[in-house]
Amino acid sequence: MGGKIQSLPGFRDFYPEDCAVRNYVFDHWRSVAHRYNFHEYEGPILENSELYQKKSGEEILQQLFHFEDRGDRSVAMRPELTPTLARMAVARQRDYRKPMRWFGIGQFFRYEKPQKGRGREFYQLNVDILGESSESADAELIAFAIDLMLDFGFGVEDFVIRLSNRDAWIDFMQAESMTADNLQEFLQIIDKMERESPETTDKKLIALGSSRQAVDNFISSSAADKHFSSIIQNLKARNLADHVTIDLGVVRGLAYYTGTVFEVFDRGKAMRAVAGGGRYDNLCGLISNDASSMPACGFAMGDVVITDLIRETKNANSRLLNHLGGVNTTDVQVIIADETVRSEALYTIQQLRGAGFRVNYSMTDNKVGKQFSQAEHAKARVAVIIGSEYPKVGVKDLAERKEEKIDSGEIINLVRAILDKTPEGPLYA
Amino acid sequence: MGGKIQSLPGFRDFYPEDCAVRNYVFDHWRSVAHRYNFHEYEGPILENSELYQKKSGEEILQQLFHFEDRGDRSVAMRPELTPTLARMAVARQRDYRKPMRWFGIGQFFRYEKPQKGRGREFYQLNVDILGESSESADAELIAFAIDLMLDFGFGVEDFVIRLSNRDAWIDFMQAESMTADNLQEFLQIIDKMERESPETTDKKLIALGSSRQAVDNFISSSAADKHFSSIIQNLKARNLADHVTIDLGVVRGLAYYTGTVFEVFDRGKAMRAVAGGGRYDNLCGLISNDASSMPACGFAMGDVVITDLIRETKNANSRLLNHLGGVNTTDVQVIIADETVRSEALYTIQQLRGAGFRVNYSMTDNKVGKQFSQAEHAKARVAVIIGSEYPKVGVKDLAERKEEKIDSGEIINLVRAILDKTPEGPLYA
Repeated sequence: MGGKIQSLPGFRDFYPEDCAVRNYVFDHWRSVAHRYNFHEYEGPILENSELYQKKSGEEILQQLFHFEDRGDRSVAMRPELTPTLARMAVARQRDYRKPMRWFGIGQFFRYEKPQKGRGREFYQLNVDILGESSESADAELIAFAIDLMLDFGFGVEDFVIRLSNRDAWIDFMQAESMTADNLQEFLQIIDKMERESPETTDKKLIALGSSRQAVDNFISSSAADKHFSSIIQNLKARNLADHVTIDLGVVRGLAYYTGTVFEVFDRGKAMRAVAGGGRYDNLCGLISNDASSMPACGFAMGDVVITDLIRETKNANSRLLNHLGGVNTTDVQVIIADETVRSEALYTIQQLRGAGFRVNYSMTDNKVGKQFSQAEHAKARVAVIIGSEYPKVGVKDLAERKEEKIDSGEIINLVRAILDKTPEGPLYA
Repeated sequence: MGGKIQSLPGFRDFYPEDCAVRNYVFDHWRSVAHRYNFHEYEGPILENSELYQKKSGEEILQQLFHFEDRGDRSVAMRPELTPTLARMAVARQRDYRKPMRWFGIGQFFRYEKPQKGRGREFYQLNVDILGESSESADAELIAFAIDLMLDFGFGVEDFVIRLSNRDAWIDFMQAESMTADNLQEFLQIIDKMERESPETTDKKLIALGSSRQAVDNFISSSAADKHFSSIIQNLKARNLADHVTIDLGVVRGLAYYTGTVFEVFDRGKAMRAVAGGGRYDNLCGLISNDASSMPACGFAMGDVVITDLIRETKNANSRLLNHLGGVNTTDVQVIIADETVRSEALYTIQQLRGAGFRVNYSMTDNKVGKQFSQAEHAKARVAVIIGSEYPKVGVKDLAERKEEKIDSGEIINLVRAILDKTPEGPLYA
């Protein structure tokens, strides 16, 4: 076996500084989910391939990490959470009051060519409301998505919710006397409109019995407004409607959406979807073979694009940096000034940790100067110096560079007093 | 496609009540890691199979979910974190001050016959110190493991650290003039001693040039004490030595351990290892093909056995239950007593959530009585009742069953006052 073993292409290593950013995103996701009264769940990372084929057809397997396990089952590393959610929710729907307000944070896998903003794994927040057919549930999700963005520090200039509804396109197809069977094919054309030439789009639309002109006219008319009035009114009541624009060009790629679809859209140069979702009233029924099954709606936000956007956006990025300044720092560095009192130092460390403080120290004999340099590197806010005068010890406020000599029994109180007056965040910025 | 799609055998669904237990365990893991000044990292769930073969040989693949990916790479879902850690740490060891104090919380996979306490996936805490050869690092890890158990609510009667050292067995082999090449084989015999008949063990030991009698004599002698004196002294200084017993019979299964090995052992009926670890000074060098590489030690704790043990242990379980009583509960239920003021209610909900409260409400027109029943089910501590008298609203303390009529501008202050005086935890136990 030759050189060093590398990680697989498209898979990330989260070193402590990367993991801190990941956790910052997770913490925001959880915090808003908490305020919105959603309950966390999680499913398996490996599922029967059938779960994805049933929803998306055979071809989906081409984009998945799928294989035969040792028990000859066709299994796949999950590319998304919604089929698992539908499986779980249907299996135990009698045990939960409806509507169920559930969220999950987990990792997902797709076998794609790795490129910027798209690896072979990603984390994703999934937020879903099950058992509620009213559009007030759709509005609740859109409000959640907006509050999430605001919570990260984004403003109305940074993002917009593009709101659409597939039912509007069903109206259009009826008005154009198009065959309802072609709905998915038609929606694919609308989905690609932004990226394709007008001529290509027109040709495809004519083949289905319509035209680009008819589609353009429909988009710029107010014919579809009735599909949005209740959601817009709901968001207006929350003072959030300024963050929303109606955009029938948004249909979202997934086949299972039935009504409202929306995406959180980056208004900046990159112009990409940061999150997206919609209503999928038939999926639970499809998964469970039970046509009377639950209505549902949900949305998902991946970690990669949102993290890029935070990094690129001044206010959001400064919130992140401010947070990171306090991560992986230490409350107290215990300085062992004399090896003969290492036991006393270990006793003190145990007391300090027992009181809930984060404590660092040198595990081996080191010069005092080097231990203070450790304290600085760990961004400790207090140094407790233990030497041969024990039980007299020094406690140094590292921000004010002021040291007091006290009795060891008073350490915890003094440390707490210093930490309480020292503002959160790094001392050595 | 016939019936409902099931989850795969050995894989767990975490419904909200299960996820709350999982998160309780994670939160404790993180909290103690924080006090001990460890920094969180995470690696990929999928790795090159070679990473595991290099450490454990071909046969390890039989126990893994491994397959060829679409790029013809032999890949495996990770069975443990240590090889990934070694890969990551070696790749960027110049970027971090030593010793590196790192911890990770993630999911792992093994293709085994599912049985009680052993599925095909599990979560695990990994705690490692890299770049420190002193046994004071081993002691720091053992102290961490003990504090973790104490933090869960376990006492000296519930668990013990069984401390051992492979070097003691190297001494023994030398004293017995056994071939050093047989070390791994010999350690396997010691590892299985507890579960095998004395005759079987004796036969195997004789084949290697020793005997069960010699091994028994060695275990009950004090010949190995020198390997433990510094760790025991260190733990005594922290007042933690009562939780430790020296037990040379513990060698831990993994081939890569080099010195100290230990396990957290359940003293109860089940008598199983709850966590385990040790020193592995050669692994980073093996992974990186660099013999001069970092010394290291670490331990891991899985979620399954610790959760079972919590459930079975009175004090630990009552701490868990006390915590769960406050999970998935609501601060405020907004009761919409009149549909004509739904917009005003949504405005109020937005204000309350903006103030950080967890808020539930009925998304559709519902009788007031049913909404109060929702509040009870959600274990809300306050109800805000919004009706046709708006901006006069009712705020009800659901613990004291006392309602006040106030102006809508005063809602947040009054809600905060009620929540501040209501003790944490469920109202409807």
